[in-house]
Amino acid sequence: MDFSISAKAQDYLKRVKAFMAEEIIPIEDEYFRTLRQQENPWVVLPVIRELKAKAKAAGLWNMFLPMPEYGPGLTNAEYALIAEETGKSFIAPEIFNCNAPDTGNMEVLAHFGSEEQKAQWLAPLLEGEIRSAFCMTEPDVASSDATNMAATAMIEGDEIVLNGRKWWSTGIGHPDCKVLIFMGLSNPDAPRHQQHSMVLVPKDMPGVKVERMLPVFGDLDEPYGHGEVSFTNVRLPVSAVIKGVGRGFEIAQGRLGPGRIHHCMRAIGASERVLKLMIERAMSREAFGKPIINLGGNRDIVANARMAIEQARLLTLKAAWMLDTKGVMAAMSEVSQIKVVAPNVLQTITDQAIQMHGGAGMSDDFPLTQIYAYARCLRLADGPDEVHRGLISKFELAKYKTKSK
Amino acid sequence: MDFSISAKAQDYLKRVKAFMAEEIIPIEDEYFRTLRQQENPWVVLPVIRELKAKAKAAGLWNMFLPMPEYGPGLTNAEYALIAEETGKSFIAPEIFNCNAPDTGNMEVLAHFGSEEQKAQWLAPLLEGEIRSAFCMTEPDVASSDATNMAATAMIEGDEIVLNGRKWWSTGIGHPDCKVLIFMGLSNPDAPRHQQHSMVLVPKDMPGVKVERMLPVFGDLDEPYGHGEVSFTNVRLPVSAVIKGVGRGFEIAQGRLGPGRIHHCMRAIGASERVLKLMIERAMSREAFGKPIINLGGNRDIVANARMAIEQARLLTLKAAWMLDTKGVMAAMSEVSQIKVVAPNVLQTITDQAIQMHGGAGMSDDFPLTQIYAYARCLRLADGPDEVHRGLISKFELAKYKTKSK
Amino acid sequence: MDFSISAKAQDYLKRVKAFMAEEIIPIEDEYFRTLRQQENPWVVLPVIRELKAKAKAAGLWNMFLPMPEYGPGLTNAEYALIAEETGKSFIAPEIFNCNAPDTGNMEVLAHFGSEEQKAQWLAPLLEGEIRSAFCMTEPDVASSDATNMAATAMIEGDEIVLNGRKWWSTGIGHPDCKVLIFMGLSNPDAPRHQQHSMVLVPKDMPGVKVERMLPVFGDLDEPYGHGEVSFTNVRLPVSAVIKGVGRGFEIAQGRLGPGRIHHCMRAIGASERVLKLMIERAMSREAFGKPIINLGGNRDIVANARMAIEQARLLTLKAAWMLDTKGVMAAMSEVSQIKVVAPNVLQTITDQAIQMHGGAGMSDDFPLTQIYAYARCLRLADGPDEVHRGLISKFELAKYKTKSK
Amino acid sequence: MDFSISAKAQDYLKRVKAFMAEEIIPIEDEYFRTLRQQENPWVVLPVIRELKAKAKAAGLWNMFLPMPEYGPGLTNAEYALIAEETGKSFIAPEIFNCNAPDTGNMEVLAHFGSEEQKAQWLAPLLEGEIRSAFCMTEPDVASSDATNMAATAMIEGDEIVLNGRKWWSTGIGHPDCKVLIFMGLSNPDAPRHQQHSMVLVPKDMPGVKVERMLPVFGDLDEPYGHGEVSFTNVRLPVSAVIKGVGRGFEIAQGRLGPGRIHHCMRAIGASERVLKLMIERAMSREAFGKPIINLGGNRDIVANARMAIEQARLLTLKAAWMLDTKGVMAAMSEVSQIKVVAPNVLQTITDQAIQMHGGAGMSDDFPLTQIYAYARCLRLADGPDEVHRGLISKFELAKYKTKSK
Repeated sequence: MDFSISAKAQDYLKRVKAFMAEEIIPIEDEYFRTLRQQENPWVVLPVIRELKAKAKAAGLWNMFLPMPEYGPGLTNAEYALIAEETGKSFIAPEIFNCNAPDTGNMEVLAHFGSEEQKAQWLAPLLEGEIRSAFCMTEPDVASSDATNMAATAMIEGDEIVLNGRKWWSTGIGHPDCKVLIFMGLSNPDAPRHQQHSMVLVPKDMPGVKVERMLPVFGDLDEPYGHGEVSFTNVRLPVSAVIKGVGRGFEIAQGRLGPGRIHHCMRAIGASERVLKLMIERAMSREAFGKPIINLGGNRDIVANARMAIEQARLLTLKAAWMLDTKGVMAAMSEVSQIKVVAPNVLQTITDQAIQMHGGAGMSDDFPLTQIYAYARCLRLADGPDEVHRGLISKFELAKYKTKSK
Repeated sequence: MDFSISAKAQDYLKRVKAFMAEEIIPIEDEYFRTLRQQENPWVVLPVIRELKAKAKAAGLWNMFLPMPEYGPGLTNAEYALIAEETGKSFIAPEIFNCNAPDTGNMEVLAHFGSEEQKAQWLAPLLEGEIRSAFCMTEPDVASSDATNMAATAMIEGDEIVLNGRKWWSTGIGHPDCKVLIFMGLSNPDAPRHQQHSMVLVPKDMPGVKVERMLPVFGDLDEPYGHGEVSFTNVRLPVSAVIKGVGRGFEIAQGRLGPGRIHHCMRAIGASERVLKLMIERAMSREAFGKPIINLGGNRDIVANARMAIEQARLLTLKAAWMLDTKGVMAAMSEVSQIKVVAPNVLQTITDQAIQMHGGAGMSDDFPLTQIYAYARCLRLADGPDEVHRGLISKFELAKYKTKSK
Repeated sequence: MDFSISAKAQDYLKRVKAFMAEEIIPIEDEYFRTLRQQENPWVVLPVIRELKAKAKAAGLWNMFLPMPEYGPGLTNAEYALIAEETGKSFIAPEIFNCNAPDTGNMEVLAHFGSEEQKAQWLAPLLEGEIRSAFCMTEPDVASSDATNMAATAMIEGDEIVLNGRKWWSTGIGHPDCKVLIFMGLSNPDAPRHQQHSMVLVPKDMPGVKVERMLPVFGDLDEPYGHGEVSFTNVRLPVSAVIKGVGRGFEIAQGRLGPGRIHHCMRAIGASERVLKLMIERAMSREAFGKPIINLGGNRDIVANARMAIEQARLLTLKAAWMLDTKGVMAAMSEVSQIKVVAPNVLQTITDQAIQMHGGAGMSDDFPLTQIYAYARCLRLADGPDEVHRGLISKFELAKYKTKSK
Repeated sequence: MDFSISAKAQDYLKRVKAFMAEEIIPIEDEYFRTLRQQENPWVVLPVIRELKAKAKAAGLWNMFLPMPEYGPGLTNAEYALIAEETGKSFIAPEIFNCNAPDTGNMEVLAHFGSEEQKAQWLAPLLEGEIRSAFCMTEPDVASSDATNMAATAMIEGDEIVLNGRKWWSTGIGHPDCKVLIFMGLSNPDAPRHQQHSMVLVPKDMPGVKVERMLPVFGDLDEPYGHGEVSFTNVRLPVSAVIKGVGRGFEIAQGRLGPGRIHHCMRAIGASERVLKLMIERAMSREAFGKPIINLGGNRDIVANARMAIEQARLLTLKAAWMLDTKGVMAAMSEVSQIKVVAPNVLQTITDQAIQMHGGAGMSDDFPLTQIYAYARCLRLADGPDEVHRGLISKFELAKYKTKSK
């Protein structure tokens, strides 16, 4: 049992913190102000491209990939602490080329992509030249049960033909988004987890149409966005299928483990940011003759936040460590656990911080409602809390002989 | 102890329900779609003016005022059930001329206005020809402690001069908003609750400037809006002061009681609407081979929602009945109680409904995030939860001899 | 909508309060001290018999029965307020002859008993000469599903023969307990709710054996107690069956409605007692230079308690009023709602009061752990929370067309 | 970051688990049955002495002390996992000579005792020949604020004279309890944390009187017990003072850190035991045609329990690791954090397990109410939750420049 941080992770952490403090945090407010003033906010502002170049030059790039051939080769547990830092800013992840869903998509390609697929899509993603989206959730079915998926990816000769409608395809609004990973039903008669395929789809392919961008609590989250996308007879060569027809779930399982960890650590970083905002506000304003922090249960709220964050962080690190040392399958319960815990911690603390800010907390003078919306999304994205709780209890019950199934 | 509804209230309730079902609910989606498409959404769409005329003609107008000279003369307890119905739509309150903050402002004028003030402002408000705003909360101080208020309303000869900055002035963006009630410090040396005055300010007065409109969870809430307003040497005759210099808190206390009840009952109506959406969604979608409603703890969520709503409704009715029969002072604890309970019930249920809707719940395909933002506002508007909890416990402790103060 | 209390209820309430204040509260501590010192605590101490006689003479007797032929004839809503008062003492209910399970058993006999059954058992129960128990729950099955019941009540000629094992038969340890109501399976082939019979069993009948008394949080709750009872070939004439073979569930349903209300109101009275203890303690002790009540979130705890109690009381009154005016079937959701709410409120507040008392709260210097155990029991007795939540949601969903059942 | 367990800890853990499984768990029920049948339950049953001898012979003895001269010399983090195991039985800690309050008292003596004190008291404690108690909390003041302490330990010449009343002196009922550590006020005029002394008091000293044993939820917790003890002019040589007059708080601070960790890990072990009981019960009973585990939100309860336990364990390990590597002062926030978290997790899960057991859960057929009472105690013992929350927030706020104190 050793809770200390490796020298390598400490080094990256220190450099990422410095980069955040010197380059990113100081320009973030101005960035969002400028973006909101754009007639078309679906753009990459120059400052982002500049900072990406700087981060890349500094080697603070692709830190999420454990394979040394693609970057620093940090373990998941090491990267977790980096992701926590980047979670304190909404623009940091892209700047370090560590943004969802590109991270997960790059992992998929690194693990399962053919050489051709890697050359065509992984290479430019690793360079940060293009971005990507992941098209899995569907509007017409309860996607909490992934086997409900109704979109099709049917083999016809040496082609695969995609049809259906997806939504919550995050990042699809980004001007650099060039490729989508589409998941659809190929073999309705195969066993339940061998029916679906993952297919690489150029975004400008005929038949692919972004029908609309979806707001989250009224926010379109430009320039990334969450799209509803229709696929109408989209024809691709079979070589666009990743790993093989019917292997979609197998890939998804591998993809989601580390990706969930990244989100959770970012959520923890965001929680620390929110706690800081809460305390600073509550120490600087007075009511009834005292700083707000000294009124009623406010100090208890701070203490509870600290306990919740600390525990969530440890659980994420444990899950990451299990991914690193025991593999995705052995880490499934822990990954689901932290997937439930971290967003709920963030949502709760953010709600309390809003309350402690008074009206200001609801406005965009502070990033609180934006963070709140992020937390709220995470409780649904990559599987809703309920599905993860179900999975956790399934693992728990499996330890016992039972007449329930 | 009689929980039945009076014949008069039943009659109005029935007619309001019918009006909602036939005239308002069917056009609401289209109304919001149209509004969003306006280049300038700070407008009153014709359908609203038409429906206002219809409601007025039907006598479903000014139902919030207990005084028979101004309308049907329903008691607060009777009106509570009406307000619950109107809370099921965001546009209904205006259509029945029962919208905050006009309701509270009309009450202030009806109770405390001079004949001149009534003729100038109350008459057109009662007719629904103009609308109003209430300028109390300030950006630069913790307004949870109202005595923190820093804006000034200083007597100079036979004029009163207003200076300062207010925000969260709801309704100030409405094109019909013609008058503001401003509260400011007049006598810093008077006893703590006799320092402030309420002043009627024409919105187009020189020195009054709406600096910006404040978003709530990203939503500007057009065409009402929440404004930040500066007052710079706004000069008015002393006759613009309501009731008298230094009597602002006295008026505020009377104003807020019934107003809080209205909001709470609307929150309960909104809760019923959300519960309905939740159940309909959860009964109509399937996952893992079952309707979602039958999965995990979802039925418990429904049961808990029913218990929470039922209790909140009863507490609101009790508080309203106390206002009607014992007066504002005797009802203070109950009013504070329901002020805490109702918005929290609505916020909790709405969060659960969002979760049960999956991604759709976060988008604007459903009114859930809009309702969520409304609930979130209510936990701060008219005094944050914390202040009300403090008041409730103060009343509780006052029942005992004590060495605490 | 009228929250005022009828003159008749006010009169009884005033007299019950006075009797409690003058006769019961002053002797309660001494009573328990004396009882604990008995070698055999399964006794009725003389003070109880004296106070029963006094209460009876004062007409404060059998107040729970709405039928005027048996007592004051208070409605359920009127009695609810009386029950709240008696809930502030563990010995008061017996003194007023309003103790469970006798109350429910008397109701059963009054409604469904034959003239012979009434003469034999109802008359002495009404006089307070004997006491009774109710034998329904079983140790070997999940009794939350009442149809699991495995004990049998089989007709053999003109006799009915009882076999099986029951537990949590409350009151069976009382020296005056003379009769049990036993519920068992008679017709396994009948429709699900027509299989069981209720049978009146003299406690000293051969074949009836109290196997042991069950502790609740270590407390045997003398001299009432909760027994585990075996029934071995207990033979009774068919005339011992209440209402008819196979009508057990029908009776149970009628029995449980008002009985649950009584328990809930007593729980609310107990909650008021606990809140009082909490405040008195927290106002009288100091830590860190302040009365404890002024530390941290303690005042919020008081405010939350007040809101929870107030809402629970209103919901109980509403449910009682529905029983009175709409009948048992129409009140089923409300009765289940309050059955969940009231014990949970009491449990929560008592836990908080224990915490505010420090170590003393866990000891028997205060009645807090005893009250806690009572609350904990109520969350299981007469149906666990879970079953009631299930029922509430079933009523809720029944308002909608549905594909779930 | 390494969550693996050292080879040494694994070895001890494996042997403790085997010892528990083979020697302790099989006899525990019988032990408690036998104890309850004793006329005088304040005894050490022979089986305990036998098992102590066996454990000692196996080297599974004094595992809590990190100093290698006194035992295996496990770190706090290593011992934490052992303590978790022993927390699954109420008798295990004594058998391994790892029982509170002896552990804390031995630590005090090992760190701060004079050679004479070590020879007289530490040696027989280490051998398991005698036991001890800790007399700090007082009945007449709010002991949450330790500086409230009113008992006195006054120097008179070369003697120290003790007066006052203590309670919640755990273990004082044990027949082997021979020595008490008493804390009292020596220098009222010294700085706030230098006023008190710790004194070693033979239990049979004249003037020491155990006034009564205190029940916890009705349970006297024999043969350990929680005593109320009066000290009347107890005269001891100054050499009975530990470390020096006025150094009581200094010692207490050092004593409490590891002791809290031990309790927390035992609470986590108890939580695992409760979760196991819950699942086994819920998988083995049926209601409404399904195993109870598959009803309503029961699987969610299991999942939530797993997440809570996992997080509490990680936080305890982190706190233990900080004690080991950074020292008591640096670990203070983490120690307070886990002191709040672990007992609350145990209390919540136990309440849910009781509910899932139905009536059986409240009786002594299962250890649930006993465990519940243990959890409830822990929320007050060694400082109530509220004091720890206050401390945690103080550390948090200290990170910021502030005008609050």
